Amino acid sequence: MDEVRLARAYLSRVAEPPAGALGVLVEHLGPVESAELVRRGEVPRAVLDETSARVGQDIAAEDLAKAADAGIRLVTPEDDEWPAWALLPLANARDRGLRWAAPPLALWVRGPALLDDAVRRSAAVVGARAASAYGEHTAAEFAYELAGQSVTIVSGAAFGIDGAAHRGALAARGTTLAILACGADISYPAAHTTLLDHVAKEGAVISEYPPGTTPAKYRFLVRNRLIAALAVGTVVVEAGRRSGARNTAASAAALGKAVLAVPGPVSSPVSQGCHDLIRSGTATLATSVPDILEAIGAIGDLPDPQAPPPPRPTDGLSPQALQLHDALSRATPTTPEHLARASGVPLGRVRALLPELELTGLATRAEEGWLGT
Amino acid sequence: MDEVRLARAYLSRVAEPPAGALGVLVEHLGPVESAELVRRGEVPRAVLDETSARVGQDIAAEDLAKAADAGIRLVTPEDDEWPAWALLPLANARDRGLRWAAPPLALWVRGPALLDDAVRRSAAVVGARAASAYGEHTAAEFAYELAGQSVTIVSGAAFGIDGAAHRGALAARGTTLAILACGADISYPAAHTTLLDHVAKEGAVISEYPPGTTPAKYRFLVRNRLIAALAVGTVVVEAGRRSGARNTAASAAALGKAVLAVPGPVSSPVSQGCHDLIRSGTATLATSVPDILEAIGAIGDLPDPQAPPPPRPTDGLSPQALQLHDALSRATPTTPEHLARASGVPLGRVRALLPELELTGLATRAEEGWLGT
Repeated sequence: MDEVRLARAYLSRVAEPPAGALGVLVEHLGPVESAELVRRGEVPRAVLDETSARVGQDIAAEDLAKAADAGIRLVTPEDDEWPAWALLPLANARDRGLRWAAPPLALWVRGPALLDDAVRRSAAVVGARAASAYGEHTAAEFAYELAGQSVTIVSGAAFGIDGAAHRGALAARGTTLAILACGADISYPAAHTTLLDHVAKEGAVISEYPPGTTPAKYRFLVRNRLIAALAVGTVVVEAGRRSGARNTAASAAALGKAVLAVPGPVSSPVSQGCHDLIRSGTATLATSVPDILEAIGAIGDLPDPQAPPPPRPTDGLSPQALQLHDALSRATPTTPEHLARASGVPLGRVRALLPELELTGLATRAEEGWLGT
Repeated sequence: MDEVRLARAYLSRVAEPPAGALGVLVEHLGPVESAELVRRGEVPRAVLDETSARVGQDIAAEDLAKAADAGIRLVTPEDDEWPAWALLPLANARDRGLRWAAPPLALWVRGPALLDDAVRRSAAVVGARAASAYGEHTAAEFAYELAGQSVTIVSGAAFGIDGAAHRGALAARGTTLAILACGADISYPAAHTTLLDHVAKEGAVISEYPPGTTPAKYRFLVRNRLIAALAVGTVVVEAGRRSGARNTAASAAALGKAVLAVPGPVSSPVSQGCHDLIRSGTATLATSVPDILEAIGAIGDLPDPQAPPPPRPTDGLSPQALQLHDALSRATPTTPEHLARASGVPLGRVRALLPELELTGLATRAEEGWLGT
């Protein structure tokens, strides 16, 4: 077992994420030397703050063995699959208003997905636990279609929107990543054990917490920054006015990423958070998968539902021509004189406009007058 | 019968609205002299274009008598109740992209509402004819609440959203104005005869077309500019991607007025137009009556639903204090040493933070340790 991985495993056990000061130390001295200095307590005050409480929990070999038994590998910045480009922006995200900044020191990963590949074309689909049927349906539908377009679906495995998003992606045989606020060996919520096993089989269950770590409120906030960072864009399907999904959206915005929100009925409390995000300009309104593909820069050759509606034959007409066209009957031929009075268009103009309408197929000449079409 | 009113009635019959050139002539020479010149055909070419087709329909006295019989009065710019400030911006609205510009020459009004008073505090509530139950419910609810706040509801008396808006306002015993694309003596749609009679009893049915004028496609577009102009702001409740309501919204935007759109389920075709309006920035998202009151500058002392949610006791806590608070059990007293390991916060900080949490009521001291609350 290599010493770098052992050092990273030790630091992952010792420091509660996010550990920004420790991260800077490791960046400068490397994980092996940093771990040694942490063990001896010979580190700057800020790093001591992040490490002293658990400094004696020197059980990296055990953790790695236990993880391996559960099918979990430790992915570190030294590995090829480390998505550095996605995680590095967390390092200075505090300046941009992200309270829980700092990249993870390592990630515990259960599943075959290679992180770097998986997140290159990805969307976080997140939202309320107490979602509505509309929200769950929309999340599953969007995730299904996105996964069908080779977009990895990142979410948090919670009840409601998160679960629906994972399920939608799995139904399309796509890749989905579940980022947990507890050890990757723990199924939380317990009712999602089968779902998480399925995610771990097809994509990956990911955590920055060592095996056995239990979920905690604080850890959900810290975890949300990882969801935001690992996805190219974040889609909030439903969210209460105060919710984890809004926290994830705020993290994505602080990281300069695309944030989208799905509207819903104004009477639905779980759409309120989405409406607030749109109104405040934090999120753009998303109603379809092409909206999302466009926002994450993954637009393919799908038809654009925002394309202008097909033109009508009357679109190019002048106001007078429109007035005249309105006055034409489809059933009874009408004389130019009558058309002038009915439309208010001068007779001379009526005589000039009728052949123009005929050319564009909007009028036909009959024996006793003109017909509209 | 005064000659000004007779002149306006004649011009209203002769020129199909909007008649911009005629309007300019009337503004310079007054209605009486303008009518006389129109009769004689001694007018500039642009005015001739607007008047020559019906110049011989000199039946103003008949029209006014017929109108009076139907309870309709002709309101003109010379009358005190003429809402000049609302209608004048139509004069140069063509420069701002409004195709159907020009103020009306006069308005035929059935109902007790005095126009100037009625529109001073007003909102247009408009939308799809083929509305959903959600849309009709929302329109009626918003109109009811707005009318209860003394806001006049302006709409177009169509099936669907328009009808629901009028009904909501009437249910609140508020003022509502129906602007028609046909004569004010014609009930269109016919199934809304009772509704229009009710509107005429409590508010007003308004048209720029003389009695007996039948509706036409072109007239709906022309009418929509009046709805937009007569209301301080326009609320689109539901609209297809191509609809009259979007046309009204575009008119309101061209007039520099507040435009709001109500979101709905992404699966609902009649919400697509609203979502497009929000996405393009033409409309702001509206989910509640206070949103609308704010946009039309009529906010009273209603509670603001957009106010930030009430703070939680843990809101002000530092990350370490939050970590510590998460680690506290509500049931089992825990020692500072255990709390340090569980939270990752150094023991010294744990000892300092616990009394702070106690002061804010988030922790209590027990004999064997500390409890969370």
